[in-house]
Parts: sequence; C-alpha cells; structure tokens
Amino acid sequence: MRVYLDHAATTPLRAEAREAWLAAHEVLGNPSSIHGAGQDARRLLEDARDGLAEILGCQSIEVVLTSGGTEAANLALKGLWWARAHGTRAVVLPDGEHHATLDVVGWLSSTQDADVRAVPLDSLGRIAPDAFADALPGAALATALVANNEVGTIQDAAGLAAAASAAGVPLHLDAVSALGQVPVDFAAWRGPGSAGGGLVALSVSAHKVGGPVGVGAAVVSRHAAPTPLLHGGGQQRGLRAGTQDVAGAAAFAAAARAAEAERESESVRLAALRDRLVRGIRDAIPAARLLGDPANRLPGNAHVLFPDAAGETLLFLLDMAGVAVSTGSACQAGVAEPSHVVLALGLDDRAARSVLRFTLGHTSTLDDVEAVLARLPDAYARAVASGARSGSGTSSARSAGRS
Amino acid sequence: MRVYLDHAATTPLRAEAREAWLAAHEVLGNPSSIHGAGQDARRLLEDARDGLAEILGCQSIEVVLTSGGTEAANLALKGLWWARAHGTRAVVLPDGEHHATLDVVGWLSSTQDADVRAVPLDSLGRIAPDAFADALPGAALATALVANNEVGTIQDAAGLAAAASAAGVPLHLDAVSALGQVPVDFAAWRGPGSAGGGLVALSVSAHKVGGPVGVGAAVVSRHAAPTPLLHGGGQQRGLRAGTQDVAGAAAFAAAARAAEAERESESVRLAALRDRLVRGIRDAIPAARLLGDPANRLPGNAHVLFPDAAGETLLFLLDMAGVAVSTGSACQAGVAEPSHVVLALGLDDRAARSVLRFTLGHTSTLDDVEAVLARLPDAYARAVASGARSGSGTSSARSAGRS
Repeated sequence: MRVYLDHAATTPLRAEAREAWLAAHEVLGNPSSIHGAGQDARRLLEDARDGLAEILGCQSIEVVLTSGGTEAANLALKGLWWARAHGTRAVVLPDGEHHATLDVVGWLSSTQDADVRAVPLDSLGRIAPDAFADALPGAALATALVANNEVGTIQDAAGLAAAASAAGVPLHLDAVSALGQVPVDFAAWRGPGSAGGGLVALSVSAHKVGGPVGVGAAVVSRHAAPTPLLHGGGQQRGLRAGTQDVAGAAAFAAAARAAEAERESESVRLAALRDRLVRGIRDAIPAARLLGDPANRLPGNAHVLFPDAAGETLLFLLDMAGVAVSTGSACQAGVAEPSHVVLALGLDDRAARSVLRFTLGHTSTLDDVEAVLARLPDAYARAVASGARSGSGTSSARSAGRS
Repeated sequence: MRVYLDHAATTPLRAEAREAWLAAHEVLGNPSSIHGAGQDARRLLEDARDGLAEILGCQSIEVVLTSGGTEAANLALKGLWWARAHGTRAVVLPDGEHHATLDVVGWLSSTQDADVRAVPLDSLGRIAPDAFADALPGAALATALVANNEVGTIQDAAGLAAAASAAGVPLHLDAVSALGQVPVDFAAWRGPGSAGGGLVALSVSAHKVGGPVGVGAAVVSRHAAPTPLLHGGGQQRGLRAGTQDVAGAAAFAAAARAAEAERESESVRLAALRDRLVRGIRDAIPAARLLGDPANRLPGNAHVLFPDAAGETLLFLLDMAGVAVSTGSACQAGVAEPSHVVLALGLDDRAARSVLRFTLGHTSTLDDVEAVLARLPDAYARAVASGARSGSGTSSARSAGRS
C-alpha cells in the first residue's frame, strides 16, 4: 500500500473539479469575444468568479484569476511595489515566508531598490505582533503567510491586517496553504480599511484544495491599483492580461466549494489523524519533536524534527517503503538546503536538515497513518545509522537511501 | 445551425488533449517533489516538454511552460529588457503587433525608460524588411509576429531572425497564431545565432491548437538569460517559478502533436474552404475586399473589409443569425476601437471599423461556409441601412443589432 502524506505539495483533483472542467469545455468561446458563444463562456467564468468571491469573502470584481499562487503573490507584491506611495521603499517581510514571496522581495531588494525590514518568528513560528507593527510605519508594503506552509503555524491574519491598516501600509496575505483548512475572509480581515493601507491583496491556489494546477487567484481590493505583471488585452480590470481560463476557473470554484463545505468536519477528522500520527511517532521515537504551534496549526500538518537523522535520508527511505512525505525544505535541482523556516524558529542548521513534513488531505485515512507508523521506525533506525557511519546527520541521502 | 468561425479567438479542445489531461491526473504528485510520486509526475512533464520541443524545433530545456501566450510574451520582452546589454534602451516594434507585445512595450516605454522604434507594415501587412534591419543597430531587443493574428499575413520569420542575428540584437517572435498553421522551427530560424543576439525567444499558446486555455510556452534559447517575471521556487531554469502544470503540459503536447500531424492536409483543406468563403462574399458583396497578403496568409484566415458597414454591427447581426465571427479589433469593456492593424495597412479610421475576421479551424466544414454565405447578405444589407440611417458606418452596434 502506497501512502501519500504530501498533500501540502499537491492534493488529488476532486471529482467536482474534474466534472466542472469537462463541462466547461462543452461551451466553446473566448470570454472576451462579444458574440453569443463568447458571452456563454463569459457567464460560466463569472459564475466561477462569484463562487470564489463568496468563499474568499470578497466582491466578485476583486477576484483576479491567475496561473496559481506564485503568480498571485508576484502580482500583488511587484504590482504594489511599482504602484507604491512616493518616497516609500521598505518592504516588511516576516522570517520563514514562502519562496513565492521571499524571492520576490529579494528581487525587489536586489534590483528595484527595495529595503527589506525583516520581522522575526517566535519559537512556535508565530509572527511577533509588536515587531510586525513596529516595522510598518512608512513602509511601501508588507506581506505575511496566513498559515506557514512548512511548520503549519496559523498567524493572526486579522491582527496583522489591523496593524497594517492602522499604519496605512498595503498588506498582502499569502493564503495558499490556508484555503480549505482554516476560514479565509478577505472583507472581515480587511475591516474598515484605510486610505491605501491595510489588507489589499490575498493569494490562493486551486491545486491545494483539489482543483487543477495552473489556476489561482489574487484577491485585489477595489481600493488598490497594483501595476499589472502581465500586460496585453486588458482583461480583469486591466490587472492581468491573457485569455481567461474558464474551465480552470470553474474547476477551481468547484474544488473550493467542496473543500469549504467539508472544511469544519475535515478539520476535526484530519486533526485527529494528525494527532494520532504525532503520538505514534513520539511513542516509537521519543527524541522526535513536533515543530510549530502545537495548538494553533493547520489540521493536516505534522512537522517533525528527528534530531539524529537527516531529513532527506529519511524521506528517501520512507519513499522506498512506499510513503511519500516532504522535508519541507526547498530541494531545487536536487540540492537539499536547510529549511529557512526551521532556522527562523531559532533552531540550528543541523536541526533545519533533520525535519519531515507530513501533510494529510481529503483522501487521507487512518490506514495511511497506521502504515506510516509501521514503516517509520525501521527507516528512522537506518537513517540514524547512515548518519553515524558518515559522521553526520546530513549525509548524502542518495548514497544512503538508494544503496 | 450555429456556425463558429472565430477559431483564432479559441478553438475547441481536441479529444487527444482532453484524454491527456485526464490521464495525467491519474498520477498524483508535484513534479518538484523528490519522492517517487513526484518523480512519476516529473516524467510525465518531461515527456510533454520533449514532445513540445520536437514540434517547436528546440531543445527540451528551452521550453519554458507558462500560463499562455500573453505570459510568454511578457516573460520574453520584460525579461530580455531587464537583462539587456548595458546602455541599450531601444525596442524594435513593428506596427500591427498583438496587444500582448504592444502593451508590454508600451509599459516599458512609459515606466522603464524604453525608447520605441516603430517599423511600418506595407499595404499587405508585411513587415518592411529594410526598415526592420535599419531599426535594429544598438537596440536592446526586437519583437515581431510570425503571422498577424488579425489580417493573417505571414512574415518572413527566418529573415527577421537573420537580421537580428546580424545586428546582434535579441529577437522575440510571437508564434501564437502561427503554431499549427505554418511550420514553426526555432532552431532553423535561429540559425547559427550570434553572441546575445538573433532569435532567442518565441511564444506559443495551447488553446490556439486545441489544447486547454491557461497553458503556453516561451521557447528561451539556452544562450539567453532573461530576468524571470515570476520569482519563487526556482522551477524551469529559474526562469518561471510556480508549481508546474503537468496535466496542462501533457494536454498542450497532445494537442500540438495532433495539430502538427494534420497541419499540411488541414492547410490545404482550410485554405480551400477559406477561398470558397472569400469568393462567395465577393460574389454577393462586390465592394467587399480581402485584407492582408492574398497569397502568403494563414490558411484559415479571411479578413474582409466591408466598406459601407460597421464591423461591430455586422458582427452582432451575424451573431443573431447564429454565426460567430470577430471584428478583429480589441473590444475590451464593450468599446469598439478601430483596428490598429488595419490602420497600419494604410487604411483610414472608417475602414478600421468596417472589418470582420472569419477564422476557420479543425472543426470547420463546408456547411459552415455555406451557412455564412447564406446569412451574410441580409446582415450586410441591414448593417449598411443602419449606417445610412445613423449617418455613419460606425453607428452603435447595440442599437442596430439588438433593436
């Protein structure tokens, strides 16, 4: 039995999304075409936009469809940067953010003269509220995760938005890992807003809730006018050019609706499975330690430090045993980097290479959890032995795992 | 019988693309994940990339998957701009380009200090080769359509690329309307290349060849390093961050393969249908005139000037008669603008509001053509009468068409 506990990387397409995608293709037309066929497509598109707006707590016109969460975050951050108030150049960036915001702010800093104001996390992964508020005055923009995609800690989104509103600084929230797991409510978080400041943009992605990859949205407040990232045909308030993907939007809306409908019951079910997993891991491996906020965390997320083992080695050994998990670190081009999120919790480089992220989702079962618990102790023992042989807990995973 | 002759706006999803999309969802995994599930997804993705590379005449690593043609053009042009040679700031832009390049260059000009060098079209829509070559020396970059999406004129892509190579200027070609209709061969057009110059980027879109909307690609030469438009997880040579859309890529490759397999036979079939349509229009309406190059044009394209009628009125009247066509002009927000392409042919504003674009595609039949020819004369007579009543050929289409 193969076990997939990497739902935060991507989760199976929901049947509702597949059906919506197929049904949308029964309607032929570019929604920007003014003939009847185009208008039929336009209606499907606007129905999808309305559905997403309802789930996201915003107005339909505020839903700017994108190719995913990365594009949404790039649009929000670069767009707000280019449209910023005269004379501002600071960007408020908490530690431990996702690469889709981290790397954008890095680019703004290295090429566009932005000045980064970092905000620390506490040992549970929470953005320090006072430090966030202190960093805001006079900033061009701020960004934050609603829930950390690696360690699962849920932030006080409303509190961050209120601080940004009080400071008059435009705020982008990355809700990619939050949607479908915790309530996302743009209008409630935004509150009364303030001229040009407060929550003005929020990013979400379809494939994290069982929609297709390649579809996402930036909620962009009616009161904000970020510079578009994609210029062209002037679609979507001029904020995002390109033929609009009716089928993708319909599939996203269907998936989000299904995820939202079962969110409360699934939160309870997944948290129970997750807690069973964590208890089982700690029973078998007493040195293991749950990272992130133990109480206020994503229901399907277990992010575990295995002090004596290299995370990548463990990942490969579990993979060989039929269990798919993640180290939670960026493994581009096969190079294992220590997790910048774990470092932001105050742990050291070795710890940041000794973590595994287990993420459960809508298809996860108790059998999955039991299977992991049955296979983990052996993988762990081998990973520890491999580390001891090579004189480090961060030995080459390939040589250990594939030999 | 409803007739759809707006295949250049979007064309029906091919069965091969639908099957590939569905089959790809049988494989669960993010292609950036290092576990086995992720690697299974990665293999599907790379198979799709290989297939596209073969069709586009480039190396697999040069295929950068995007959310469509607009993103591809934005990546190429903005990316080449930001990475341009020190001291250069001219952008070579032929008249009559698509909005996805026109508006990007406009933004570079209005906000990024770019200096636009316009290149005229001749009366058939051809880019004047000498003027193009004369505009190149010292430019930061150049762009051109392989085939004009409105009037259908096919350019000398190899000649444009050779001129750019000789001048050492990076060239982007927009092949969105060309793919599947005429041969597209990146390596052949690029030729031996030159240091930093010549053809370095080419844009294509899936939904123009029967793939899904929301999928496209920029071919980016191994010898070019444009600045990415989307920063994040470092996917695709660091040129385009974001979870890669395996199903979209597989569907694009399947559609492109099917389109390419039948391209030669379809070119003959569609050109014959198109010629039948044009002859029929001119028999019924002697004042009508085919625009664009009569010989060297996209096989499915008939772009016709109806001197005494407003194009938008005709479009609405044909729509009411069950025929979907396009004015070929940008009708964003319901405002009919005169076609900048028709103006670039040397015709006046009135002519630029009096055109219809008929585009045939893989589902078009002789019955479609005959149905249009049966319904057009009445629509034309009413459009002319409407224009005469309102004292102009550009009266409100809504008042004429919907009354």
